[in-house]
Amino acid sequence: MRDTYHEDLDALSDRLIEMTRLARHAIARATTALLDADLAAAQEVISGDEELNRLDEEIEQSAFDLMARQQPVAKDLRTIITALHMAGDLERMGDHAVHIAKIARRRHPDSAIPTELRSIVLEMGHQAELLVIKAGEVVADRDAETALELDKDDDRMDRLRRKLLERILNEGWSHGVEATMDVTLAGRFYERFGDHAVHVADNLVYLVTGKKPKDYESEV
Amino acid sequence: MRDTYHEDLDALSDRLIEMTRLARHAIARATTALLDADLAAAQEVISGDEELNRLDEEIEQSAFDLMARQQPVAKDLRTIITALHMAGDLERMGDHAVHIAKIARRRHPDSAIPTELRSIVLEMGHQAELLVIKAGEVVADRDAETALELDKDDDRMDRLRRKLLERILNEGWSHGVEATMDVTLAGRFYERFGDHAVHVADNLVYLVTGKKPKDYESEV
Repeated sequence: MRDTYHEDLDALSDRLIEMTRLARHAIARATTALLDADLAAAQEVISGDEELNRLDEEIEQSAFDLMARQQPVAKDLRTIITALHMAGDLERMGDHAVHIAKIARRRHPDSAIPTELRSIVLEMGHQAELLVIKAGEVVADRDAETALELDKDDDRMDRLRRKLLERILNEGWSHGVEATMDVTLAGRFYERFGDHAVHVADNLVYLVTGKKPKDYESEV
Repeated sequence: MRDTYHEDLDALSDRLIEMTRLARHAIARATTALLDADLAAAQEVISGDEELNRLDEEIEQSAFDLMARQQPVAKDLRTIITALHMAGDLERMGDHAVHIAKIARRRHPDSAIPTELRSIVLEMGHQAELLVIKAGEVVADRDAETALELDKDDDRMDRLRRKLLERILNEGWSHGVEATMDVTLAGRFYERFGDHAVHVADNLVYLVTGKKPKDYESEV
């Protein structure tokens, strides 16, 4: 039987996995809001962010209580510290989904994304979903090997963003200042969303191995 | 005489204050790089960021050691947890200065900022410096009252950013796509820099009072 202490540690992990689910839903709906000028989807992302903030605070409070009541060392302490970091990253992933939703809301009933960029933005949205789903899986499975893959997966997001910016800088771009700003920022928000997913995976590597990803990778 | 434990706790605070100094220097040089197309300044910001990253890692390692060796509770534990948060914020402030320096480097020998926007960007740079200096002061003095002011100080940054965006969206804007992108992103980086300074101050309020700024403010 698990004691309360270890149940509380496990609960940290459950909350983190729940946060990855919420962040995935948020970025998926934000992409819909952006591409389809879907105001209801945008509103849903914006108001739904409260739940991610609440979980982040719960994790912080619980981590604080655990450290104050127990004297966690080694791996238990790493579980608590990495949970704090991961929760912070997931909370910010929610913020980036909100930023994207707000671009959509601002341009409604128009779409902020010109027709010829829709496929790239859709791919960025899909890649963002993939990254956060995978982050959730490696946290659930404590799978340091797979966690190391996220850095490479994120390279694809970076390539998509570069492609997006090349299109804007292309001679043929004729969409005016608002569209330029919207696409520039949306691209950055997707990229940052991906970066934070990689951070979550990096923290999982540290949790499992006690080593930073680069040091661990050079050993395996 | 202070024992090693309390010396280590104090050292956390010293490192944080050093980080605010480095972050202030970074944003000041980044603004110079941006406005004067100063490549040397840009390079200095980019390579200097390593020092901020190193301090962030030192604080994290030290926090971890302190928690593992001691059984910090109450305020000592808050000192450690808030140091982790503040270091993370200051490290990201350095990143935002680097992002700004990279815009300058990309456009060199041209300036990324059109003449008519120089004064607004200069003001944003000054406001960023003010925010991080003030964050350093409240951390050094453990001054929760003054820490509460940063949120208002940051409103000025938000106003400056809105002014910047209004100029870009104005009919008279004639600077093409690259300038639109550069100014849009630079504006966002200054805004984020300010947000993180507010987070540092918020954490100081929590450290001193044990309450989140909003709960504390409603009592004073």
